Amino acid sequence: VKIAVFGVGLIGGSIGLAARRLTDVKVVGYDPDAGALSRAVELGAVDEPAFEIVRAVSNADVVFVATPVGVLADAARRVLAAAPAQCVVSDVGSTKRQIMQTVTDPRFVGGHPLAGAETAGVENAREDLFDGATWYLTPSLDTPSAAVECLRELIVCFGARPVAIEPDAHDRLMANVSHLPHVLANVLVARALQAVESENMTGENGALGAGPSFRDAIRVAGANTAIWTDIYMSNYDLLADALDESIEELCAVRDALSARNAEAIAAWNDRVLGERKQLQRVGLAPDS
Amino acid sequence: VKIAVFGVGLIGGSIGLAARRLTDVKVVGYDPDAGALSRAVELGAVDEPAFEIVRAVSNADVVFVATPVGVLADAARRVLAAAPAQCVVSDVGSTKRQIMQTVTDPRFVGGHPLAGAETAGVENAREDLFDGATWYLTPSLDTPSAAVECLRELIVCFGARPVAIEPDAHDRLMANVSHLPHVLANVLVARALQAVESENMTGENGALGAGPSFRDAIRVAGANTAIWTDIYMSNYDLLADALDESIEELCAVRDALSARNAEAIAAWNDRVLGERKQLQRVGLAPDS
Repeated sequence: VKIAVFGVGLIGGSIGLAARRLTDVKVVGYDPDAGALSRAVELGAVDEPAFEIVRAVSNADVVFVATPVGVLADAARRVLAAAPAQCVVSDVGSTKRQIMQTVTDPRFVGGHPLAGAETAGVENAREDLFDGATWYLTPSLDTPSAAVECLRELIVCFGARPVAIEPDAHDRLMANVSHLPHVLANVLVARALQAVESENMTGENGALGAGPSFRDAIRVAGANTAIWTDIYMSNYDLLADALDESIEELCAVRDALSARNAEAIAAWNDRVLGERKQLQRVGLAPDS
Repeated sequence: VKIAVFGVGLIGGSIGLAARRLTDVKVVGYDPDAGALSRAVELGAVDEPAFEIVRAVSNADVVFVATPVGVLADAARRVLAAAPAQCVVSDVGSTKRQIMQTVTDPRFVGGHPLAGAETAGVENAREDLFDGATWYLTPSLDTPSAAVECLRELIVCFGARPVAIEPDAHDRLMANVSHLPHVLANVLVARALQAVESENMTGENGALGAGPSFRDAIRVAGANTAIWTDIYMSNYDLLADALDESIEELCAVRDALSARNAEAIAAWNDRVLGERKQLQRVGLAPDS
């Protein structure tokens, strides 16, 4: 199998490493950043560096486009123009409507592995990054089923779980379970700092402390600005909807608190506990 | 040392277990729930059960009141009425203004260990629950320094880090770094479920998936309703303030998204990254 990876950062590099699990595989890498490409070769994520897209994808069975979301469509188009007729081309972008509307070639199957880290770059690539992760796929109606099957098999080899989904459903889901949590983590950081400053707490030598719920809640705060601005903007409408709905619920909670309505607060928390159990049933929350 | 614990749940039980690290210690437990008390004895969290408060606290050097927040002031008053003159009485409540205003006895030193779990009850008590945790103390001006020192030493033995703080500052900080994260976790669960339902995703057999940021963000969602309603209501005003400020920031982010203002989103994320570094300096965020 010849796999080509366009963009050897955290995700592209991890695909190259995970591909070692296949027998008889060759990974060709391409990256406009020559330094990243040579580090990918050093780290064993790429067998063979290619300095032109045409070279990278010639004779490739599968190409993964793993660039930032903002340049994804352009990169995918360039790959498709150079790739063989029977090649399967996929991407790893965090949103799927935009790319699926722009790239209509039947060889293209949108993809999104739910893996990542606070740390970007091929230096942080890991062979096991996708173990146990959900990997969403958005095949179009024109995609040959053999192409989808080929991609599914690869993804299973990488340790992930392929799940087909509509682009609209994918982006609405991600707006709420990925982009919104990142926004809320950012808000929490801002709130905490303002609390410290408004009470003139000095916190010298790290004197203050917070519990594990805060540490978990802000883990992704201030994530890579370039990557995340791209992601937010590529899903701006559905994320704005998610924010509107969140604001509405926060206003209701605030009103119940201000009215000292303990019964409303208790009922709200009980409702959420029931909703959490429903999320467990569809796979969105871990079993408790 | 004789330590009395009023309320042998997760926190009270863990205090009893952590006290085993002291040499020559006796832990007397009291709980209106006789079943919880006998389980605490079985689990080794309590050496001696007491069936009356007067018995529990007679000759005690230190008493920890570890009841739910809603009945804390009453429990503390009953303990102080029965406790010896030189006894130190503390609590473990999640908010500190209310109790410090109600209980003015100089033997009382407010306390709040930042430890907990999604699982309540003495069955989940752990000897190491406080290891590495911050344990806030709110001594009043009338508290003898020897009493505070005695409490600090015990807390260090339990594995925690005692930190003195004003009740107002404590409650504003907790509104933002504990109570607000719990509210936002609840909102995220509701949002995710609505996304699933609005797109008619069936998620049969747990087919859907979310990334680690969502799992972390909802870990505390739908926490014990009785305990958390008490906590929210005991800090309703400062939590409402934190919600108002959060809503304001979310509206600004929503507006920037709707205006497709990528520069504003990037600037906001960069600002948060700087704020996160400031939180690290005061001890509220882990070093990255």
